[in-house]
Amino acid sequence: MSQKPTLPKGTRDFGPQQMAKRNYIFEAIREVFQKYGFMPLETPAMENLAVLTGKYGDEGDQLLYKVLNSGDFLSKTTDSDIEGGSKTLLPKIAEKGLKYDLTVPFARYVVMNRHELALPFKRYQIQPVWRADRPQKGRYREFFQCDADVVGTDSLLCEAEIVLMINEVFSRLNIHDFVIKINHRQILTGITQAIGATGKENEFCVAIDKLDKIGTEKVLEEMKARGISEAATQKVLPILQLEGTISEKIVQLKDILQNSPEGLKGISDFEEMLTLLENFDLQSHHIDLDVTLARGLSYYTGAIFEVKVNNVSIGSVSGGGRYDNLTGVFGLPDLSGVGFSFGVDRIYDVMEELDLFPEEAISATEVLIIHFDKPSMNYGLLVLDKLRKAGIKSEIYPDQAKIKKQFAYADKKNISFTVIIGSEEVATEKVTFRNMRSGEEEKLTTEEIVQRLAKPRE
Amino acid sequence: MSQKPTLPKGTRDFGPQQMAKRNYIFEAIREVFQKYGFMPLETPAMENLAVLTGKYGDEGDQLLYKVLNSGDFLSKTTDSDIEGGSKTLLPKIAEKGLKYDLTVPFARYVVMNRHELALPFKRYQIQPVWRADRPQKGRYREFFQCDADVVGTDSLLCEAEIVLMINEVFSRLNIHDFVIKINHRQILTGITQAIGATGKENEFCVAIDKLDKIGTEKVLEEMKARGISEAATQKVLPILQLEGTISEKIVQLKDILQNSPEGLKGISDFEEMLTLLENFDLQSHHIDLDVTLARGLSYYTGAIFEVKVNNVSIGSVSGGGRYDNLTGVFGLPDLSGVGFSFGVDRIYDVMEELDLFPEEAISATEVLIIHFDKPSMNYGLLVLDKLRKAGIKSEIYPDQAKIKKQFAYADKKNISFTVIIGSEEVATEKVTFRNMRSGEEEKLTTEEIVQRLAKPRE
Repeated sequence: MSQKPTLPKGTRDFGPQQMAKRNYIFEAIREVFQKYGFMPLETPAMENLAVLTGKYGDEGDQLLYKVLNSGDFLSKTTDSDIEGGSKTLLPKIAEKGLKYDLTVPFARYVVMNRHELALPFKRYQIQPVWRADRPQKGRYREFFQCDADVVGTDSLLCEAEIVLMINEVFSRLNIHDFVIKINHRQILTGITQAIGATGKENEFCVAIDKLDKIGTEKVLEEMKARGISEAATQKVLPILQLEGTISEKIVQLKDILQNSPEGLKGISDFEEMLTLLENFDLQSHHIDLDVTLARGLSYYTGAIFEVKVNNVSIGSVSGGGRYDNLTGVFGLPDLSGVGFSFGVDRIYDVMEELDLFPEEAISATEVLIIHFDKPSMNYGLLVLDKLRKAGIKSEIYPDQAKIKKQFAYADKKNISFTVIIGSEEVATEKVTFRNMRSGEEEKLTTEEIVQRLAKPRE
Repeated sequence: MSQKPTLPKGTRDFGPQQMAKRNYIFEAIREVFQKYGFMPLETPAMENLAVLTGKYGDEGDQLLYKVLNSGDFLSKTTDSDIEGGSKTLLPKIAEKGLKYDLTVPFARYVVMNRHELALPFKRYQIQPVWRADRPQKGRYREFFQCDADVVGTDSLLCEAEIVLMINEVFSRLNIHDFVIKINHRQILTGITQAIGATGKENEFCVAIDKLDKIGTEKVLEEMKARGISEAATQKVLPILQLEGTISEKIVQLKDILQNSPEGLKGISDFEEMLTLLENFDLQSHHIDLDVTLARGLSYYTGAIFEVKVNNVSIGSVSGGGRYDNLTGVFGLPDLSGVGFSFGVDRIYDVMEELDLFPEEAISATEVLIIHFDKPSMNYGLLVLDKLRKAGIKSEIYPDQAKIKKQFAYADKKNISFTVIIGSEEVATEKVTFRNMRSGEEEKLTTEEIVQRLAKPRE
């Protein structure tokens, strides 16, 4: 009667090794978020579909996982509900869905708790989300998002702090060759005005967003196909090819956007953020001004961010921006904020590709005690107690077993050190301490081992 | 067009304060699990219903949340599926469900990865689970479980280590007045044999499990109602009222169970566990032998554990036991293991009741920088940078705002210290450092503040 169990497509188990590596990334992000005054929030996996539906466009609604009502879910349906097909029946048999991102539940939380919250409210949230997407390499149906948002202020210091946090997270993870691409919604608006495509902002941005993938020529074709004039596309070409340092780009842009107050406002916001950053002691701020960056334009109203690690096969690893109206859809208008999301799966892949996970991140148990017989095992328990009291992650092989089997266990678990105990060790009170990486062995007392391995209490 | 958003019944948001407290508990548990050589595992929220169904009894199947198939879910159904009602239709429109506990997904993981795992496999898992239960005080539809299990060994050292871990977790949380009640499935078997109710073990245990709730008299009545003879219930009475120290109880039990080899095996297992514990330096092991403890008997085959905190309104806060056949249902028989689960919601309530959360667990940001004007804010940014570089969780109020408003923000966020900067502070390079609990104020340089607050790098 047994069955061969399987995992749902697009979902993953995270075993000990992957968990250790993932936690290494999460910890770096979490510590930085906290250091910058962001507070943790967690919302339920399930939300009422009334909260989720209509927030992600038609395609998003399709990708929402819906949870069937409990019990006799058909009892409140009528024949015509069923005859109407899946779309008609759906709202009658499913009231809840799995959350699709962390932003909408955050907005719901802010609205429901607006009287208790200290504004500006800085929250971070690290939780899984679910999308009924077609699974493919690097795209999953359950994946974690790592978001930080500040709402209730339009201070550009928040943008500057996002740059600082990105710098600190990547530096902790030992990723140094990356660029924080920044653009501004109003610079994009200014460009459409400057090229004579006023009002065609959405079309412009949908096209420009594909620059990395399809190249300049095809982007211009797409603009024309979307109703942007030939003349405008000719004017846009030099803007797309803007080069030089940030200051050089700003000089050129100021000239191009001289007749667009919005465009100039976008530039001055960007400059103010740079000025604010000068107060902080940064070796490099890794920023570039990229006027072709458009990420989800309809949502962002100010700065737009994207992080790219150089010289790896993975594209964008994180992104975010400023928005004006997070909670308007829930009846609380005009709440401005800025948010940023670290793409943990992508960062994980980058770190694997660059071999950046340190040994400590991979090895969980530090010491395994291996024993030849029952009296050795009993002595091992005393050693074990002392190691753990010193805060050293350690275990003893729990059964009487062949030494080879016990070593194989240490190897499989990637344990750094073994303590080997036989009758001689018990008699001399000096155990064999083996470094599993180098194979080096020494005879040491338990106290000597503690001295070697003990770290200041976490 | 705005809507008033709501949360699904039985689910919760965890805001900053609750998260901080919950993380304090999770951290204590996680650190202890790791110190004892347990490795982290996470499995997806969704499992195939084929994996979940039939594992939790009929009632459990009812309480599973089912996830509707994506897209046109009715397309593969026939008229007769629909006419058959919810039960017939369900398997045609829902292939996946939300996990109901961590044990079944763990078993699935072990079976799917059996060739790579190092046995004995020690894993811990801290994740939410979902049950479509009627919501009531202290019972939620989404709640976290915190499990540790060792599978692939029947060494009683594992039971002893569970006792050690419970002691260490509760001691870290500053909960000292608790008892670890222990029983053994074979002691329960022995008792039914000794009283002449052989084969009535399930009935016996269902009744005895209610002892705390309904009292001795009603338990005996229930036994009779379940077909246990009058004579047997008379014999069981003194066993239920067993008193004294552990050693005294063991002496009496050995006499009562003298003709039951199973019963005596149960006692000797318990004694061996006690002997193993003597190798460890424990101030008190908090153990009691409770022969009336039966928790989910059909599952456990050896030791049974339950932790109760004394003098609080909450009952059992954690439990576990040894099982013989975790993975049999997935085609991998005879895998013995022992597991334990910390009840985080219950422990949270106990700690609130006893006021045990330390100040550090509640306050997230340590320092808020408050400023009178733009130059003060700019100076504040330099201070901020130095504080953060020293690892101090700190933030600056991001807008120009009234001092009162900035202080209110610090209060609402429960921030421990404020640094207040006006023109005098900028001129003298000594800022006002205010302890928000005591109200005490001093003039200090940034370096002096760093010295006060800096901790060794985590």
